[in-house]
Amino acid sequence: MDSSADWVSTPPSSRRHFLKTVSRGVGGAALASAAGPLAGQAAGRSRPSVGVALVGLGNYATGQLGPALRETSICELTGIVTGTPAKADTWTQKYDIPESNVYDYETFDQVADNPDIDVIYVVLPNGMHAEYTIRAAEAGKHVICEKPMATSVAECRSMIDACEKNDCKLSLGYRLQFTPHHQRVMKLGQDETFGSVTAMQNGFGFHIPDSATGQPHIQWRLNKEMAGGGALVDVGIYAIQAGRYVTGEEPVAVTAQEYTTRPDIFDEVDETVFFQLEFPGGARMNGSTSYNASFNRLYATTSDGWFELRPAYGYGGLQGRTHRGAMDLSNVNQQAQQMDAFGRCILDDRTSRVAGIEGLRDLQIIEAIYASIAAGGQRVEVPGGA
Amino acid sequence: MDSSADWVSTPPSSRRHFLKTVSRGVGGAALASAAGPLAGQAAGRSRPSVGVALVGLGNYATGQLGPALRETSICELTGIVTGTPAKADTWTQKYDIPESNVYDYETFDQVADNPDIDVIYVVLPNGMHAEYTIRAAEAGKHVICEKPMATSVAECRSMIDACEKNDCKLSLGYRLQFTPHHQRVMKLGQDETFGSVTAMQNGFGFHIPDSATGQPHIQWRLNKEMAGGGALVDVGIYAIQAGRYVTGEEPVAVTAQEYTTRPDIFDEVDETVFFQLEFPGGARMNGSTSYNASFNRLYATTSDGWFELRPAYGYGGLQGRTHRGAMDLSNVNQQAQQMDAFGRCILDDRTSRVAGIEGLRDLQIIEAIYASIAAGGQRVEVPGGA
Repeated sequence: MDSSADWVSTPPSSRRHFLKTVSRGVGGAALASAAGPLAGQAAGRSRPSVGVALVGLGNYATGQLGPALRETSICELTGIVTGTPAKADTWTQKYDIPESNVYDYETFDQVADNPDIDVIYVVLPNGMHAEYTIRAAEAGKHVICEKPMATSVAECRSMIDACEKNDCKLSLGYRLQFTPHHQRVMKLGQDETFGSVTAMQNGFGFHIPDSATGQPHIQWRLNKEMAGGGALVDVGIYAIQAGRYVTGEEPVAVTAQEYTTRPDIFDEVDETVFFQLEFPGGARMNGSTSYNASFNRLYATTSDGWFELRPAYGYGGLQGRTHRGAMDLSNVNQQAQQMDAFGRCILDDRTSRVAGIEGLRDLQIIEAIYASIAAGGQRVEVPGGA
Repeated sequence: MDSSADWVSTPPSSRRHFLKTVSRGVGGAALASAAGPLAGQAAGRSRPSVGVALVGLGNYATGQLGPALRETSICELTGIVTGTPAKADTWTQKYDIPESNVYDYETFDQVADNPDIDVIYVVLPNGMHAEYTIRAAEAGKHVICEKPMATSVAECRSMIDACEKNDCKLSLGYRLQFTPHHQRVMKLGQDETFGSVTAMQNGFGFHIPDSATGQPHIQWRLNKEMAGGGALVDVGIYAIQAGRYVTGEEPVAVTAQEYTTRPDIFDEVDETVFFQLEFPGGARMNGSTSYNASFNRLYATTSDGWFELRPAYGYGGLQGRTHRGAMDLSNVNQQAQQMDAFGRCILDDRTSRVAGIEGLRDLQIIEAIYASIAAGGQRVEVPGGA
């Protein structure tokens, strides 16, 4: 009997995770006074901590998540999963990760036995998100899955089911929801500070030069099976997210148009998509996304004014304005905030604000957008409920 | 035999207009040295001048064109056409217009006999543009017609035909083409300063509050026969214009979506329209217009950068930026620049840069947009040529 099966048969696993976490970090009693410094505990840590293992050491893990895990208060990088031995060497040295916490895709499921690892962060190409999220859940680990959650609504459902069945928490890499800027626009929109939102123009896109198509982090994005779609699923999804959390509503219908100016490169996935969302409260959103154009703006107009983020969707440097003037907000380490928020959910046994359902809903909208494109731009209803 | 028929039978009328203009202002010889001050001429004017009569003394004439005609170098306000005697009194006093240069809609055609009036500026509700442009041309007068040029492509053709037949110049109220800001984005786009334009997001819209629907300048805008359409023809047309002059191309196809959140008010004309234009060089434009939302931005992304105007479409206060920084450009009196440019066309016998064909092309696009809406958002080709 392997130990992952063991874990699965030991409910309630949320309590199990809790104990496992603190047994690696500080004593259970320390949690009540987590704000105060505690030194000399088992692993030499002075605070409750949540161990995170990154699965897939590509650009985002290397450039963002690894460094962010040095800025986290609660989470720490305790493991890696990679198929490239050279990367394993680099990371173990750079982040002081013991060899025993290094896995490859063959040995991945053995993370079940590793008490240092509480969370599996899936940073693989989109087409592998479902498999590794489910395997992580079956290994009894909480999961953070990068966006898009998966390549289909069906996959999302199976991921949510697997995590529920194994009593694991599931969170998504929606880093922007943890920034002061996006929290401000959520509040301005949902509280109707300047009246109700009547329309939005949300766009996120960047230019992939022809010369970049051979680079590993671009290559898989052009492959339908690996990516599940093009610009829409990769960056357009942020504009969709923003539409949902600014209004606080789920869109009821979409229309969409796809344009390809470089059919030799974009023979499998979308290059540019314009898409329109109808929200039940009356707000309409005109969205733009592209691998051929630079868009980086969230704009909402309301019955009494407007508010905007621009740049809206980058890893930093966000700026906000309203009709009254500039937003005085700080930029934060988005990924550190996002991971720590999930760490707190684990410690406090709460559901993530960016739980699986959020990714599933975005995929429902994305599937409706692709359906509209396939139907020549006709209006397609988004399935109600989730 | 009435004198308008007289004029019509006296080609070439462009020469005729030229002579008429200068005979009222300065001598022909003065034109060669127009830059220098000349005093004591026939009408006491020190420079060549073009007399303009405004037809329709509504908000735009009162708030913009009248005052602008005090800022013009070449044009001057020499007549008015109004159905409201009280307005006639106000204007004649304010602008020192002789009673003999005041017409109503019954006596309008008698402008043919008035040498003080070289240009008829049609500032009436859209549904009356064609009639008064044609009547002005038949009276032997050059014409400036406000945008939208008319309520259909067919009307545009009849207006162009009438002006050509009567050898009158026809120009449109596309004030923005005469601003340094819009001239800059034309150049940046057409010269491909930052590479070719890949995408645009152009939006112009404003909120008509429920309480304003009874105001005269709003009332006719909600009437299909008077306005020809809603937000799209009134303000969306600026976004269309911008798409055309930034790329320097004519769109080949459109898609569009219409949304109505206040069907009691917008039972005849469109409240909000999102529309997408495909340009033959590959640029795609996502347009937004509304009577329920505030949009005021021109944004173009290119292969090597981007440029933007925001606000883009107001009577003043335009601001521009590129990926390299702010545009250092002055705001101008748009209407004064526009009218003087036409005045120079008349004096130099040149075609306006915003001649009838420009309005006709915009109407072709607008008709395609409405056809796409009627077809449930399907792609509709814009007729080639004009």
